[in-house]
Amino acid sequence: MFRLRAPIVLPCDPSCAVLRDAVVDVDSSGRLGYVGPADGAPATDAPVRSLDGILLPGMINLHAHSPMTVLRGMGGDVPLMRWLREIIWPAEAKLVPSDIEAGMLLGSVEMLRNGITTSVEQYFQPDHVVRAVLATGGRMVLGPAIVDTAGWSWRAQLDEVSARIDVDGLRPHDRIEIGYGPHSAYTLSPESLTMVAEAARARDALLLIHVAESQGEDAAQRASHGSVPKLLAKIGLLGGRVLAAHSVHLSEEDIRIFADNGVAVAHCPGSNAKLASGIARVPELRAAGVPVGLGTDGPASNDDLDLWEEMRLAALVARLSAMDSAVLTAADVLLMATRGGAEALGREDIGVLAAGRWADVVHVDTSTEAFAAGLSVPDEHLLANLVWGAGARNVRDVWVGGEQVVADHEPTKVERAKVQAQAGAVTARLRRS
Amino acid sequence: MFRLRAPIVLPCDPSCAVLRDAVVDVDSSGRLGYVGPADGAPATDAPVRSLDGILLPGMINLHAHSPMTVLRGMGGDVPLMRWLREIIWPAEAKLVPSDIEAGMLLGSVEMLRNGITTSVEQYFQPDHVVRAVLATGGRMVLGPAIVDTAGWSWRAQLDEVSARIDVDGLRPHDRIEIGYGPHSAYTLSPESLTMVAEAARARDALLLIHVAESQGEDAAQRASHGSVPKLLAKIGLLGGRVLAAHSVHLSEEDIRIFADNGVAVAHCPGSNAKLASGIARVPELRAAGVPVGLGTDGPASNDDLDLWEEMRLAALVARLSAMDSAVLTAADVLLMATRGGAEALGREDIGVLAAGRWADVVHVDTSTEAFAAGLSVPDEHLLANLVWGAGARNVRDVWVGGEQVVADHEPTKVERAKVQAQAGAVTARLRRS
Ligand SMILES: [Zn+2]
Ligand SMILES: [Zn+2]
Repeated sequence: MFRLRAPIVLPCDPSCAVLRDAVVDVDSSGRLGYVGPADGAPATDAPVRSLDGILLPGMINLHAHSPMTVLRGMGGDVPLMRWLREIIWPAEAKLVPSDIEAGMLLGSVEMLRNGITTSVEQYFQPDHVVRAVLATGGRMVLGPAIVDTAGWSWRAQLDEVSARIDVDGLRPHDRIEIGYGPHSAYTLSPESLTMVAEAARARDALLLIHVAESQGEDAAQRASHGSVPKLLAKIGLLGGRVLAAHSVHLSEEDIRIFADNGVAVAHCPGSNAKLASGIARVPELRAAGVPVGLGTDGPASNDDLDLWEEMRLAALVARLSAMDSAVLTAADVLLMATRGGAEALGREDIGVLAAGRWADVVHVDTSTEAFAAGLSVPDEHLLANLVWGAGARNVRDVWVGGEQVVADHEPTKVERAKVQAQAGAVTARLRRS
Repeated sequence: MFRLRAPIVLPCDPSCAVLRDAVVDVDSSGRLGYVGPADGAPATDAPVRSLDGILLPGMINLHAHSPMTVLRGMGGDVPLMRWLREIIWPAEAKLVPSDIEAGMLLGSVEMLRNGITTSVEQYFQPDHVVRAVLATGGRMVLGPAIVDTAGWSWRAQLDEVSARIDVDGLRPHDRIEIGYGPHSAYTLSPESLTMVAEAARARDALLLIHVAESQGEDAAQRASHGSVPKLLAKIGLLGGRVLAAHSVHLSEEDIRIFADNGVAVAHCPGSNAKLASGIARVPELRAAGVPVGLGTDGPASNDDLDLWEEMRLAALVARLSAMDSAVLTAADVLLMATRGGAEALGREDIGVLAAGRWADVVHVDTSTEAFAAGLSVPDEHLLANLVWGAGARNVRDVWVGGEQVVADHEPTKVERAKVQAQAGAVTARLRRS
């Protein structure tokens, strides 16, 4: 148990309050105790670590396929379908389980160094993905991928996830939650999606799915089913805990379907721009009461696992879309990257610095140019300098569940150079073969 | 005179060639000598410094008002005109010359640390802006601001610039070029713009001007003059060396006017998104043969002076605008940030690593996650990892005119903490008053 004290603490509660000269208490189980002004903190015998800078909750990356770090940069700038068919899918077909573990290790190290403490992953080889995240000390919600393409049995994949949850529980480890990751309505039949949804709901498990990402996908589903959300509603998929990634092409009616069914959205502005998918209607989703958080998508397409860039991009593309420079403030996007992610997951144990939640804490270095004005500026000014001026490189220390997993920019539990070399060897082998 | 040797050198010549195991020779005057493969380099007695990583030309920030670092973060997320009228203009009115120097010092340090070696500045108090840039060791093209609003005499400002050039020359120092900075067609009359253009052309000086930045500006000019480019063409402003910042709202005819008159464009995708100005038609401008480089705009609105973000944003917004993921490749935007900036300025002494040009060189650290695949990957893969995966934090060392101005991320000629404190004191005073 210990206490962190800093000139600025941002709990990321609904109002985005800025606490000055505040402390964050961490108990022996890795949970938060008192979070508030130092003046008024309970007396403690615990060691106190005084930090310069800003403390905020670990960010939540709501949509990722992080093992794809081993494919990062492959294929250059070619159109989406050619890129998938000619480069990514053939490369993925050559990945063995240890490759996926190496890729996830690299992705996890990168995310922690960037201040992301929880990621929502959809990928294959769940045992290996979990092992990687436990090694780095990160936190994860994993929906093992369920697809229905040549050579894959969606039914076997579904049953494997259900068996996993039935044996080990939804949370086989404090830091790991297991859900279901049916890929999309264009790679799975309505019948298989219905069965996945029933299995997920029966276990109160999260269901992660790609929804209305591209224009082509949207047009095809609209012709046959009205829209992707309508199809998903019709087959009964939307009743439980559902996290819809992308959700770029939604009508007013689709947004209402999401709101009425408690569907949350993982907004991926960087991926949606790079792949020319479009701009999701985030202000409208938020106005309708749909929880919206931020995701990077896979590092083969984005390419860095950096939610600071996604925060800024979310605001930038929303402003271009609305042609209104007051849409999505610095506080709005900071809350989307933290508390918003937890709300989208239905998790009340992460995303906010508050008593009882896990001590997932990021320490931001404020000694750089972005903070030349100092920390005594008004709240709004401070938040602008943090969100618009600072970035991943300002992340200095990170704790997950009270354990320090990044110290002075470097991971504490694994050796970064070794992790990079392992992943690099996988990429080199893919390049040769 | 010395030689740099690195596993990768990107001269940023038109084809974006990737040189492997290459050297960059710097002569005693600060100019480049041989740039090419180590195998084949001339024999030399000069000291050789072997570096890991990538060498590329210093980036060129084509549009900035860098002294506004002292206003960074002020005003939060309010609509543009309220932000200007209620916050920025009143604050600027309180700036004394030493404040502007402090702001430029901070901006210059930040740019150098981010790999920007030349910036094109439009601001007041030219003597102080120049002094700041000479202190940090950067390179600059300065167009002292010429505006026509209450309390300012545009004629006095114009004459001051002309007298400056007539006495000290267009290049009062190797690192400084002086041009004319008439603000825009909405803050200056056609008659005053014509006189500025005549003065600039008579001296072969660069003329920097804001063009068709916002929807409102565009609509107003379109109603009265057809369009901003048509107005500028009609009054004879477009004959000489003209750099049009923003240029968001252009018709096909406007683009042709730019192409026919050799007008170059400073594309500012971050500023144009944050202020909801729109998306400039960069692919069309390039196709028409208009030189296009990248700018950050002022740090009061962008907010970091980071061309790595602008490179990515340029590609992202162009893809959203065209709904085509193959528009603007990694090589395209890297060339826009380097050689493209030099072309836009009509400068053949910067922007490319080639014999005879100034030795403005950036050393990129490739020990981070983005380069886990190593440097032996194919050219296209390497460029993708550099542009999409790396960023300003990878900039380790920077030389300007052969002088090392950043060493291991820190400025060599000024003390960063002191520069930040000076600028911070200005912001604090503005906040109090
Ligand atoms: Zn995805
Ligand atoms: Zn400007």
